[in-house]
Amino acid sequence: MSTLVTEGVAVRRGPGRPRDEDIDQQIIAATLELIDAEEQVTVSRIVARSGVSRAALYRRWESLTVLIAAALDVGRTVPEAYPADVDLREAVFAGLMDPADAAGYSEQRFRQRIRLVMADRALQRAYWRSHVARRRVPLESALRAGVERGILRADLDVEACFDAIAGVAYYQIVVRGESLSAEDTRARLRSALDVIWRGMTA
Amino acid sequence: MSTLVTEGVAVRRGPGRPRDEDIDQQIIAATLELIDAEEQVTVSRIVARSGVSRAALYRRWESLTVLIAAALDVGRTVPEAYPADVDLREAVFAGLMDPADAAGYSEQRFRQRIRLVMADRALQRAYWRSHVARRRVPLESALRAGVERGILRADLDVEACFDAIAGVAYYQIVVRGESLSAEDTRARLRSALDVIWRGMTA
Repeated sequence: MSTLVTEGVAVRRGPGRPRDEDIDQQIIAATLELIDAEEQVTVSRIVARSGVSRAALYRRWESLTVLIAAALDVGRTVPEAYPADVDLREAVFAGLMDPADAAGYSEQRFRQRIRLVMADRALQRAYWRSHVARRRVPLESALRAGVERGILRADLDVEACFDAIAGVAYYQIVVRGESLSAEDTRARLRSALDVIWRGMTA
Repeated sequence: MSTLVTEGVAVRRGPGRPRDEDIDQQIIAATLELIDAEEQVTVSRIVARSGVSRAALYRRWESLTVLIAAALDVGRTVPEAYPADVDLREAVFAGLMDPADAAGYSEQRFRQRIRLVMADRALQRAYWRSHVARRRVPLESALRAGVERGILRADLDVEACFDAIAGVAYYQIVVRGESLSAEDTRARLRSALDVIWRGMTA
């Protein structure tokens, strides 16, 4: 290891000089604590709770909106691309039937997220663009490949299909107030997916 | 008209003695004003705004939760039963493609409703039971009749189908942050319904 790099690491880890990613973490953690406590999320509160300066916060996130969107997505990941010969039906069902909390995302935080984005359309659009839309890409690509493979209908609107698949799950939480892990909710999801899948196939 | 009835009407309409339905209206209106202003909805605030006493409020609604649920549903109605020979496909599409605000329910209030029920599961369940579940009955009955008529699959889970149909619309508002009256949203809804309808048919 060169002296330069060693020095760099030493400086960044020295007392009173936390690493950048530690600062990121502190800010995100403070934001999530406020969200989970259902408190109003403001820059002042995040600064007070994290001990990180306002300037440091704004160096990392261009706005509070973008920071909240990032915090809301902690624990969620973009799925990997599907192999070309994936069992598409299985992929569709697995995507929906894996309970949300298995993905590192508690139902409580899910409800908080919906509450926040319903109150703030700018946050909603930011979260959509930077997180939800990206997470949809792998399955949408696999569905498009499924059209090419002749498994799915040639005239399929893949985005609309994704909306239908995900929409059933949202309906359980947002309208029925049910948990995705409850047995009768899962049975309904499965039945709805059977219908949607049949309507997608060639 | 008998004296008794005449007297009854006179008393109930006399000055300082507003009719019961006027009081109902004042309470509901005050509740909606708070909801639309995105203010916290409390019994004290409703009392202050409506000029109706706390006791009068609780004589009419057993809890604040039930009152908010009733207020959130103002302007919405339970559709009439469908005729036995209804064009089912048309009924399914009409149910979704009529914009929400044409039903007397603004998008802003829709967003407020979601926000409130996400923050309060008791309110959500009350609203589901007393309003949403009832509004689903006519179309669900028509779908069940469609199974009997041999138009829809014999093994169909009608409730799951309704969830899929309504879920697509909720996804637009709750996740995408789009308006149901936007042209590309409507195109997506139509495509998703095509898929769901195909999956439902025998």
